[in-house]
Order: sequence, then C-alpha cells, then structure tokens
Amino acid sequence: MRLDASNLPAVARGCAVLGTGGGGDPDLGLTMALRAVAEYGPVDVVPIEALPDEALVVPCGLIGAPSVASERIWNGDEGRILRNEVERLRGRGVAALMPYEIAGANGILPVTWAARIGLPLLDADGMGRAFPGLRQQAMHVAGIDASPLVLTDARGNAVVVYASEVSQVERLARSAAASLGGVAAAALYCMTVRDAGGAVVHGSLSRALALGEAMRAGSAAERVAALCQALGGTVLIEGKVLDVERRIDAGSLKGSATIQSAGHAGLRHLRLELQNEFLIAVEDGVVRAVVPDLICVLASDSGEPIATEWLRYAQRVSVLAAPGPALWRSAGGLALAGPSAFGYDVAYAPVGHEAADARA
Amino acid sequence: MRLDASNLPAVARGCAVLGTGGGGDPDLGLTMALRAVAEYGPVDVVPIEALPDEALVVPCGLIGAPSVASERIWNGDEGRILRNEVERLRGRGVAALMPYEIAGANGILPVTWAARIGLPLLDADGMGRAFPGLRQQAMHVAGIDASPLVLTDARGNAVVVYASEVSQVERLARSAAASLGGVAAAALYCMTVRDAGGAVVHGSLSRALALGEAMRAGSAAERVAALCQALGGTVLIEGKVLDVERRIDAGSLKGSATIQSAGHAGLRHLRLELQNEFLIAVEDGVVRAVVPDLICVLASDSGEPIATEWLRYAQRVSVLAAPGPALWRSAGGLALAGPSAFGYDVAYAPVGHEAADARA
Repeated sequence: MRLDASNLPAVARGCAVLGTGGGGDPDLGLTMALRAVAEYGPVDVVPIEALPDEALVVPCGLIGAPSVASERIWNGDEGRILRNEVERLRGRGVAALMPYEIAGANGILPVTWAARIGLPLLDADGMGRAFPGLRQQAMHVAGIDASPLVLTDARGNAVVVYASEVSQVERLARSAAASLGGVAAAALYCMTVRDAGGAVVHGSLSRALALGEAMRAGSAAERVAALCQALGGTVLIEGKVLDVERRIDAGSLKGSATIQSAGHAGLRHLRLELQNEFLIAVEDGVVRAVVPDLICVLASDSGEPIATEWLRYAQRVSVLAAPGPALWRSAGGLALAGPSAFGYDVAYAPVGHEAADARA
Repeated sequence: MRLDASNLPAVARGCAVLGTGGGGDPDLGLTMALRAVAEYGPVDVVPIEALPDEALVVPCGLIGAPSVASERIWNGDEGRILRNEVERLRGRGVAALMPYEIAGANGILPVTWAARIGLPLLDADGMGRAFPGLRQQAMHVAGIDASPLVLTDARGNAVVVYASEVSQVERLARSAAASLGGVAAAALYCMTVRDAGGAVVHGSLSRALALGEAMRAGSAAERVAALCQALGGTVLIEGKVLDVERRIDAGSLKGSATIQSAGHAGLRHLRLELQNEFLIAVEDGVVRAVVPDLICVLASDSGEPIATEWLRYAQRVSVLAAPGPALWRSAGGLALAGPSAFGYDVAYAPVGHEAADARA
C-alpha cells in the first residue's frame, strides 16, 4: 500500500471514525500530509515482515491538550528530530514510523513525518482506536517500555523522559508536553521490529483506508450505512443533539451529550459520556455501548464523523457502535481500557449484548 | 585538598556565606555529605590541571524551588544517575563533578554525589556566589551550551532537556524540575576539561573552606569580623530586623527587609531587597551595595549566615558587603548579572563606592 493524494483523504476520514470523537482534528494533519507527499513523494505502508528484525520501529504522534493541538502550527520536521534522537539514544537505525494511535490527527500526522525523512510506515498502531491514556497501548500490554520517551516542539527544543516506573510515564510525559507549549510531537514505546511483531495492533492503516473508502460514494445516509457495515456495527440512534456539556479537566476534554430521536414509539434519548473520546452510550438505564467498543457520531447531512469538541446543540446525527479491537475485549485489555478504567461502574458487555446501567 | 568530617562543616558555612541568603539550606547537604564521606571515604578537590583534557566535567546541583528543596529527602544516588546519563549522552567519561553554584546546599551537595561514585570535585563553580538564573554562569559567558541538561528526582526518573536556544533553557529546565516534584538534581553545562579551563570560576571550594575556617573560633563578633576581613568586605549595619516581606513569585522567593540600628547619630535604616538572594542594600536613598557584589546577613548572637527564607522580625543581625567575583564586575558580566538584570534601575557601583539610588 502506498499513500498519496488519491487515498490520503480516505485514510484521514477512517482515522476520524476510529478516533470515536478524539485523537485531534484530522483536517490539519491531512493538509500537511497532502503537501508532504506532493513535495517528497508517496509513503509506503508496509507489513512487519518487510522490515529488518533488528531495526527500530518508532510509534509517534502528538501528546497534549487536543484543543491546543488543533491550533498549533507544525513545521513538519518534528519526525526528523524524533528519529534522530531515538537513533542516538538507542544506538541503532530506525526502519519505520507508525502512528501510536490510529485516530484523528494522530493517525495521519506520521504520514508527513515519514514522507519528509523517506521512511515507510508500519501498517499498525498501538491502540486500534483512540484512548486518552498513554498506557492504553498494545506495546504496554506486551511489556515494551514507553521510555525513553522523546518530545519536541516546533522550534527544535526536545525533552527526553526516562520513567523509573510505568506509573510515572503519563505524568512526566504530559508535564513535558505542557512545558513544550501544551502539545508536543512524541516518540514512545520505541522497539525493534522483532519485538514489534507481537506488540502492536496490525493492519491499522489499511483499516482506516478501508473505512474511509466505504464512505466514498452515495448519499450521506448511504455512506453511514456503508460505514456501519464496514465496521460490523449497529446504529444506536438517529436524532438531534439536545444538550452538550463539556469542560477541560486536567488537560482532558470531559462531558456528556444527549441525542433525542422521535421514532415510531415516541421520544427516545441516548446519553453519551465523553473523555476526549465518546466512551459510553446509555438509553433508559441500559448501556447500549461502552469502551473499548467504538462509539462514533456522524453528521446526518454529510456523513462525516464529528469530534467530541465539535458536537453542538441541534446537530442532526447518527450514532454508531461497533466492536472494539480484540486486544481490549480480553480480560487483561478490559482491566486497562474497559469501563472501570474510565471510572464507569458498569460491566462490559459487547455491542449488541446490552446490560443494565448499574449506576442508574 | 581533601574533604572529610574535619573540614566539611567549614565548607558548608563558607557556602552559606557565598550564598548571600540563597542556594538552599546547607545543613541538610552537610548532614548528607558527612554521612557519605564516613561511608565512602573523603573526596578529593582537585585543580583543573589534575584532570585529563578530553574527559568531562559535570557541573551539578539542585534546580527548583528552594522552599521545596529544603524539605525533600534525597537518596544520595542522584549523582550516579546524572553521571551515567551524561556519559551515555556524550559518549565519553566523566572525570570530575563540580558545584554549578558554590552556595548553600548547592555548594555542598556534590560532595555526597562525588563520594558515592568515587569521583573528585573540580575546585571551581559556575558563579562564584549564588544567582537565581541558570544563564548567570561563567560557562554561559564562555559559550558552553547548557544542553543537554539532565534532571533526576529521588525515585530514578530522569528528564533530558535540549534547548534550541539559550533563551529556552531556563523555562524548560524549571518546567522539568516542576514535573519531577518541584526540585530536581541536575547536571548542566557539561564540558570537557579542556573547555572548562577558561569557562569556570576557579578555586571556589577552597574559598568556601577559607571563609568557613575564618569563622571557626572566637566570639560571634570576632567571627563576623574575621569573615569580613577574609571577604575583603565591610559591615554595612548592625541592628535588628524591623520588617520582612516575602512572597513566592513564579517559584522564586522575592521580597524585602529593613534593618534598623541605633547608632551614635540616631536611627539608621538599611533596606535589603531579595530575589532568592540578597541583591541590593539601600540606605537613605544611597545604594550601599548591589549585585553582583555579595550581601551577607549574619546572626549577631551566633555569627551564622541567615538565608533569605529564615530572616525574621526582631532578629539581631550584621549585614556585610564584599566584592563579587571579578567575572561579574566586567561590562559583560554586569549585563548578565548586574542590577539591571534583576530589574533594578541603578548603576552598578563597587562596594565602597556608593551611588545615589536613582529610583528614590
């Protein structure tokens, strides 16, 4: 697979879908990626087998406040600084970059960085969706160390974080990002190709492209239906946004929204709760979908995914739910990225298997 | 020169004097140093000629809020982490540590670190006194880069800062220190022995020892007099503290104090202004002493130096002023560390050459 102007818009749209409302605005990332491939040529997306065992894979993306990320101007050379610093720290060459999160801006930004330094992208990511936490990574599950974690701003400053314990990584990395202007380009969980084999979510960029391509033609309603099918998901509700409440809490966007539909059986209300991403959907005391499964909100008039920070009163939307990556649906995955990891006192039930909301 | 239990208390007292009220509380540093030399043996203090040209000298000490520093428990192994990280980053061996600031806790802490890893200390520092800014360093004047700046807490976490411009160093380093708990052990301006020759203030540890030894015997008054002579200074006032005002401003201690004496010619009032250190002494609109010259406040009952954070109402004190290091009295030195660098709109006049306070 090769990324260029013909398919990057579809990849970006797929990343927005997998972002389930988070991961940052992909439009800026797409603009940068289109410019980079025009200037430096297309970017190869390769499977793990195509890379030399002893070389390094560098998961990368932005860390910090999403609301800052979408307003920050990057110079595009962040990937070079990250690559050079990782090679210096680890004493071996980098064979490929990969998004650490196949979501929103973070899914598409590594395309620019890879194009500009002539590296391929590994067809993988660390989450298979978006999560707010740096430990919610396939690499963490596999025992890969997030340190040394390299961060850089758009002015050539860099900070390297060595955490003695995994519990310190998040705090130190967020703090370093804050010191670099609120959001930083980062490389984390760098590993050899050999280690990456069993430590990443494979096929993520291919999946983003497939999802984006499913939405390429037809009316908005047809595209929503095609996406739903491609995701193997279900439509939870179609209606309009009745209320939205958002706040910034310790650098994260938190809040909730209610979607109201007027169906044959009278008014229905679906309540969504969000922490950067849409994490839980509850209707009449029943959990209809919950993290790590995917909850996507799409605009009814365009079929486009809507980010948590852009949801607003009276928008007409479709809410989709689909199975999350298999890794996170296991017992170990749920402990790290299931409802309880986000403070929701509900049992996980896969999409389609609804459970009562114990909190009601 | 060799530091052990016989002379470390004198070095610590000398560091408190050169701290001119800042640099942190030397008592905790002294306790740690005494324990380290008892366990690991004495520490050699060597001149630059005793070290191999191509090896590294590592200036080190604490960075962060002094009020936190005096309450933080260190494990003593910070020097090992700093040394190992610097060697890895620079790809060459470390021959000696040195205090980056021969003042308060920062002057004495490197003794513990050196003892525990079996390295000598270079008889030098970067300031010849205490300053609040990381750029107010002889190494900066000589064109040595502060980056890569290594910081560690007492729990094995480390952060490395690369600043693209010298103007960014201070901000990034303070921010990293904040992320490591408010205060961190740091290595900065690491350089080869060859480069260090013309880039440090030589003889600083010897000077601290000489000042401390001058205060070893006699009554409090005799010790104050002996110190004054050893500093080549003058007593500005003897009296009591009439008022003290202090506040924490962006991690720095700022404020002022007034000392009142009842001499033969009636009441006199000396006003001291402080920014971590005592920086300016004004009497009746006349600047009696100003940074980079040294202003030391000593307790009349004990002769001991008083830190800016410990000065309190009704203390009986002697205020000494003495010439600061020659480096800072030059035109270039004054631009970086003279009155204007601290926001005082007064011309520098060496101690003994009093000038009107243009601000009055």
